[in-house]
Amino acid sequence: MTSQELTEQIFKKKSFLCIGLDTDLEKIPTYLLTEENPIFSFNKAIIDATHEFCVAYKPNIAFYEAAGEKGWTALRKTIQYLHEKHPDIYTIADAKRGDIGNTSRMYAKAFFEDLGFDSITVAPYMGKDSVEPFLEFENRHTILLALTSNEGAFDFQTLKSNGEDIYKKVIKTSRKWKNSENLMYVIGATKAEYLQEIRKIIPDSFLLVPGVGAQGGSLEDVCKYGMTKNVGLLVNSSRKIIYASQSSNFAEIAAAKASSIQALMQQELEKIQ
Amino acid sequence: MTSQELTEQIFKKKSFLCIGLDTDLEKIPTYLLTEENPIFSFNKAIIDATHEFCVAYKPNIAFYEAAGEKGWTALRKTIQYLHEKHPDIYTIADAKRGDIGNTSRMYAKAFFEDLGFDSITVAPYMGKDSVEPFLEFENRHTILLALTSNEGAFDFQTLKSNGEDIYKKVIKTSRKWKNSENLMYVIGATKAEYLQEIRKIIPDSFLLVPGVGAQGGSLEDVCKYGMTKNVGLLVNSSRKIIYASQSSNFAEIAAAKASSIQALMQQELEKIQ
Repeated sequence: MTSQELTEQIFKKKSFLCIGLDTDLEKIPTYLLTEENPIFSFNKAIIDATHEFCVAYKPNIAFYEAAGEKGWTALRKTIQYLHEKHPDIYTIADAKRGDIGNTSRMYAKAFFEDLGFDSITVAPYMGKDSVEPFLEFENRHTILLALTSNEGAFDFQTLKSNGEDIYKKVIKTSRKWKNSENLMYVIGATKAEYLQEIRKIIPDSFLLVPGVGAQGGSLEDVCKYGMTKNVGLLVNSSRKIIYASQSSNFAEIAAAKASSIQALMQQELEKIQ
Repeated sequence: MTSQELTEQIFKKKSFLCIGLDTDLEKIPTYLLTEENPIFSFNKAIIDATHEFCVAYKPNIAFYEAAGEKGWTALRKTIQYLHEKHPDIYTIADAKRGDIGNTSRMYAKAFFEDLGFDSITVAPYMGKDSVEPFLEFENRHTILLALTSNEGAFDFQTLKSNGEDIYKKVIKTSRKWKNSENLMYVIGATKAEYLQEIRKIIPDSFLLVPGVGAQGGSLEDVCKYGMTKNVGLLVNSSRKIIYASQSSNFAEIAAAKASSIQALMQQELEKIQ
C-alpha cells in the first residue's frame, strides 16, 4: 500500500488508529486455549470486531516468537486473514530489526516477501547499510525508530551531538539514504511537544505514534503538533484495546474501546478538512 | 554457561572461535535441498565437522525467519542438537533485538527459555528498560551492540556527544544497568585499534568480534588490543567457513578452514599463558 492510499483509507474510515496485536497466551481469555491455534483465534476475533474502526494492525513479533513455530503459524494466518478479508488494511510487522546488509536483506525477505507485510519497524543503530535493504522494496515502508515512548529513550536518543539530539540526527541522516521516500518514523506520543520540531525536518512523512493513552500521551497534543494535511499519523493502541476485557465478550469490548478512540480521531480529522 | 566456564572451554580447546550459522537455502549445496529439513541437515554437517575447532555457534536468526516455520524448526533442531551432542559449546542467538520492557521480556523468553540459548545479541537504541529484561536471566548473556563491523557503524555510533563517541556512552551507561555483569559487547574487528580504548572502560568483559577475515580485520590486532588474561574474546567467522565450498565435501573443507583459524588462535593464547 502506498502512503497516498493509506491517507485515502484514513479519510474514508475517519480513523488513523493502528491496533497492536501483542497477543500473549497468558493474557487472552482462557477458553480460547483449547482452540487449534489460540493466538490466531484471538486475533481473528479482535479483527472481526474492530476492523471498521482502524486502518492498520501491528502484530508485535516478539509475542509470536515466544510461542515458537505455532506463533509463527499464527502470525502467517493473521496476515493471510487480513489480506483475504481486509485488503485495504495496512499491516505493520513490529519487529525492530536491523543488521549488516546481507542479514537485513533476509529480514526484509521474511517480512515483506514471505509474510507480505506492508511495513516493518527497524532500529537505526547500525546505520545506512543496515536499513537500505528494507528500503529497496517498492510500495513497502520501513518505519525507523527515532524517538521511542519508553523511559530508556532518554539514555541515548536525546544525547546531544553538535548541539542536536541523536534522534534528530537519525532522522536527518536517514533522509539521504537510497529510497528514503519509503521511510516512516516511530515517534513516542509521550513527547508530543517534540513533534513540532520533528515536523520541521520531516514535514510530510508518516509517523507511527505509540504510547497514546496507556503511556500517558494525549491524542489532542499529538494531532496539534504532528498532523499534516495528509494526516501523516498512525496512532497505535495495543493492550488498552485488545485486553480491555478477558471475558467471553472481549472482542465486543475491544470494539467499543476502538470505536471510542475512532470517534476522537474523527473530531481531529474534521479540523483539517 | 558462565563466562568463567567459557574461558575454561577456550583454554581447553585452544580456540576462541565462534562459527556463525548464517544458513541460506540459496547457498547450501543443492543436493541437501531434498532432505526433510535442509537447513538443519547443513548445520548438523557443519557442527559434526567443526565442533572441535570452536567454542561457540551463532545462528543468525534472520536466515531462519526467512524460511518461515520450517526455519524456526531448523533453529530449534540445531540448538537441541548442540545441547545433546555438545553441551560444552556456547550458543549465541544473533537476533539484535530490543524493544519496550514487556516486549523485550517476550524476546528473552523466546530465546533463553523456549529455545535455550546461552546468549542473545541486543541493540541499545531504546536504552535501559529495553535491555534489562534480558539481563534478568541468570547464567545467560546479553551481547550489546557497541561498535559494529559495518560501514553504517560510522553513521551514529561514532558521533561525539560531550567529546565522547556514542558507542562509548553506550558501554559506560550499560555498566550501570541492573545485572550488568551479564553483559558482553559486539565490537567489530575492522576497528581493532579502538579496542585499546574500549578495554579502559570494560577491562574484563567478553567481546564478540565479527569481521575478522572476510571484512578485513586482523586476528593479531584484535588479540593485541583486546585480549585479557581470561581471553575475553569470541571471534566470529561465518561465511568464510560455512560456505568455503559448495561441493559434497563442504563440511570437510569448512573444518579445514576452522582448523586453520584455531591454529592461529592457539598461537595467540600461548602468549598469555
